[in-house]
Formats: sequence, C-alpha cells, structure tokens
Amino acid sequence: MPANDRPRDHAGQGAATTVAAHRARRRLRADRARQLADLLRRQILTGAYQDGGTLPHESILATDYRASRNTVRQALDLLRAEGLVDRLPGVGTVVVARKYPHGLDRLMGLAETLREHGRVTNEVRTMGPAPAPVPVAERLRVPAGADVLYIERLRRLNGLPLSLDVTYIPLDIGASLLGADLENTDVFRLLEAITGRPLGHAEITLEAVNADAHSAAVLQAPRGAAVLMLERLTHLADGRPVDLEFIRFRGDRITMSGLLHRS
Amino acid sequence: MPANDRPRDHAGQGAATTVAAHRARRRLRADRARQLADLLRRQILTGAYQDGGTLPHESILATDYRASRNTVRQALDLLRAEGLVDRLPGVGTVVVARKYPHGLDRLMGLAETLREHGRVTNEVRTMGPAPAPVPVAERLRVPAGADVLYIERLRRLNGLPLSLDVTYIPLDIGASLLGADLENTDVFRLLEAITGRPLGHAEITLEAVNADAHSAAVLQAPRGAAVLMLERLTHLADGRPVDLEFIRFRGDRITMSGLLHRS
Repeated sequence: MPANDRPRDHAGQGAATTVAAHRARRRLRADRARQLADLLRRQILTGAYQDGGTLPHESILATDYRASRNTVRQALDLLRAEGLVDRLPGVGTVVVARKYPHGLDRLMGLAETLREHGRVTNEVRTMGPAPAPVPVAERLRVPAGADVLYIERLRRLNGLPLSLDVTYIPLDIGASLLGADLENTDVFRLLEAITGRPLGHAEITLEAVNADAHSAAVLQAPRGAAVLMLERLTHLADGRPVDLEFIRFRGDRITMSGLLHRS
Repeated sequence: MPANDRPRDHAGQGAATTVAAHRARRRLRADRARQLADLLRRQILTGAYQDGGTLPHESILATDYRASRNTVRQALDLLRAEGLVDRLPGVGTVVVARKYPHGLDRLMGLAETLREHGRVTNEVRTMGPAPAPVPVAERLRVPAGADVLYIERLRRLNGLPLSLDVTYIPLDIGASLLGADLENTDVFRLLEAITGRPLGHAEITLEAVNADAHSAAVLQAPRGAAVLMLERLTHLADGRPVDLEFIRFRGDRITMSGLLHRS
C-alpha cells in the first residue's frame, strides 16, 4: 500500500495492535475504493468515457489517482455492482449503462426533459376512474370517495424501462385524457392542452427505496434495486392541484440535477 | 376480491385464459398493494400517525381505502420491508422509523436544515491534505495534484447515522478547517466564517444507489440498502468553487423536498 494512497490521517495509529491495524487498513482501503469509485462514476456520468467505450487500464488509473492497484480493482468492482461498467477479459473495463439527467430546476415532463436523449414511450398498464382515497382526495381538493382518473404507466426511453408512474387526476379534467395519446405524450402537455392553461408549480419529495419484487419485475431491474422515488403534486398556474404522481425511477438510469441558491 | 378494489381497467379480460387471468389478478393485486403502500407511506412521512404510534387496524384500512384485506396486508408488508413499520402481534402495525426532510429549495447544511428535528453530530473518520485527483482539481479549479483538504465524516441526527460524507476543499481555505469544531458544525457555516463571505450556489446531482458492503456497515444499514446519493459542488457568492462533496444519505432516514416551477 503506497503511502500516497490515502489522505494523511490526523488520528495516527502508532499504538494500534496488529489486529486493529489490520482492520484499520482494510477500512481505509474500502474508504479509498469508494472515494475513487465516486470520482470515476462522475467521469462516466458526464461522458468522459464514451458510451460503450473502455476506461483507462488499471495501472493508468492507479497512477492518475495515486491509488494502489488493489484499490482501483475494488473501485471498479463497486461500479460493476452498480451496473455502470462491466469488466471484459482482454478488453478491460467497459461502460455498459448510461444515466439520463432529469432536470430539477424547472417543472418538466419526462419526454420534455429527456428530449435530446431519445424518444419516451408510455405503456398504459391501467387507466380508469376510481374512488379517491382520503389522502388523494385531500391533496387534489375533491370530495373523499369522488371518482378521480387513475393511470398506471411504464415509461421507456428508446425502449428501455425508466420509470413506473402512478397518477391521480380530478375527473373533470381527467375525463378528457381517456381518449388522448398517452402512449406518446407527457401528461403535463395534455393537461395544458385540455385546460388551455399553463401548469404553475409542483411540490416534490424525493426518496431512495429498494424496489419490491413486483416493481422490480415491471421495471426489469433486480429485486431490491435502488429506486429514485418521486412524489409530485402539480398545480395549474391558478393554484388548483391537478396531478398527483408517485414515480419510481430506476436508480441506474436516472439522475436528478439542479442548482441550489444560498439565499 | 371486491370489485371496488381496483380501478376499472379499460383493457378488459373477457377473453383471457384461466392462467392469464390468474396472472393478471396477481399482477393487479401487487399493483394495488404498491399503490396503497405509497399512500400510507405519505401518511407516515407527514406524521398522520404518531412516531411510535400504530396504524389503524387492517379492516379499517381496508374500508378506508376500498381494498381487500389481502391487499392491505401486502401493502403493510412492503412498508415493513422498507423499515418504516413493524407488525407486532396483539398491538398492530407500529411506525418504527422516521424520515427527515432535507430542503431542496435553498442551499443548506445538514444541521441547518434539520434544526427543528434534533442535534446533528459529525464523526470525523479521516481528515488531512491529499493530492487532488484530476476530476476534483478541475471542479475546484486548483492545479491537478495540488493538495486539497480531504474530509470523511459520518453524520448523525440524535445519535442515529444519517449520512457518510466525503468532502474536498481547496487548501488555502481548508487549512483553517483543521482546527475547527467539525464535530458540531456544518462545513457550510465554517466556510462562511473562514472566508467572511456568504456561499452563493451549488450544482447538485441526486441518485439512488444500492449501498456497497462497506458503506452499509458504516451507516449501520443492511447491505444493498437504498442510498440517496448527493454530489454537490458549492461556490462562494463570487462564483469560486470551494466545496465538492459526495454524500450518501440512508434512504430510510432522509427525503428531499422542494418546489418546482413551470417557467
């Protein structure tokens, strides 16, 4: 383990026993591998290596990042476990997955935000009126038990499953969606066309959850795969809430990016 | 399975074979369970049931949500798998975890954003100068290989592990952090104190990833647990980048909430 393979630790380990020192070394290598994996992930996501291209050889990464070969291998193993790269004998480490950036700065539908990355299509798995459960009715400001339009869609980018979306819409607006081209059009765009008014704002909540078996199967992801879950209540410009969604994005295919300001 | 337990499907299943119909029913129940779980999760997260309190009895939930008892049980199983509730014989379904809301509307440190929820403490696992790898140097606008301050912290709220943070800071500013009270103070606050200037903005990227074995162990979460990963490059008000962070939040303890506007 070369001395330059780790930040100089301010704790010091002079008095450590052999076992403790061994544990500490192992811990430090795992920390360094994660640290390196994060930097390489960033490079992959921002396209520093071509899609389908190969990463530099382990020895070059070791030199560039002042890391040991073992640390480099462990970092590449982490990225392989995330499904971002694969390691092919005789070829090297190949980028096998791409994550698409969903904007966090402006309220946008999926097809809108991913326009430059390809075509979004929607498989409507269920659609129809259904009585609004209390928490849905409260948020959409309709009477509890009143029918709302319920939609469940599997959304794909260039044919690859991206997200599983559950949508509730007040029926006075939703009824017009029943005959609309939901397969090829964002609900946002349809809502603006139906109401003749622009959308205003949305309250969003993001979480990371492990996919349950059924959601994983629908998304064609491994059971337990990390899912970026977005709950979003969208309002028309006049403030009326018109669209409550629960969206499960495949964690290995979507990132959310934006700008935050201090004041 | 009561007829009102599902949205009226526009596809129809009259011609389905017995096997296909059985599969479709199973699929529909799983869909309904996920749908119900999402609504109950929302209720739990927004405090509709007290922390440590119990959810209504299965039969009440079945009536309230027009769902079958089987669907309710399956929904509660999903929430238990996420670690949000536990089911205690003779007691019922108990809320056992709480997720804390991290603001997405304003650039804030962890202690700032969680102020009303308790005390944030930081265990500094590693801190010291280290040569900046190229992607770090580029983003912080320092020469490649120049020393930057590297910090690795495990952050806790009221003693519970929340996140594992890796931080890079240019050394001219970072050197002053070496003697600072990092155990009890956000880096943001220290940066503003050191530079005498307010922070400006940050570019953020959020992802959901499965925790590797080592990160999971440090965060005291199960291996493979969903982690909300935040990469954040923070700038001073004059535009200079001063703080590059890679933060792994435990998915079962943090949500990110904010407002998006359409235009």
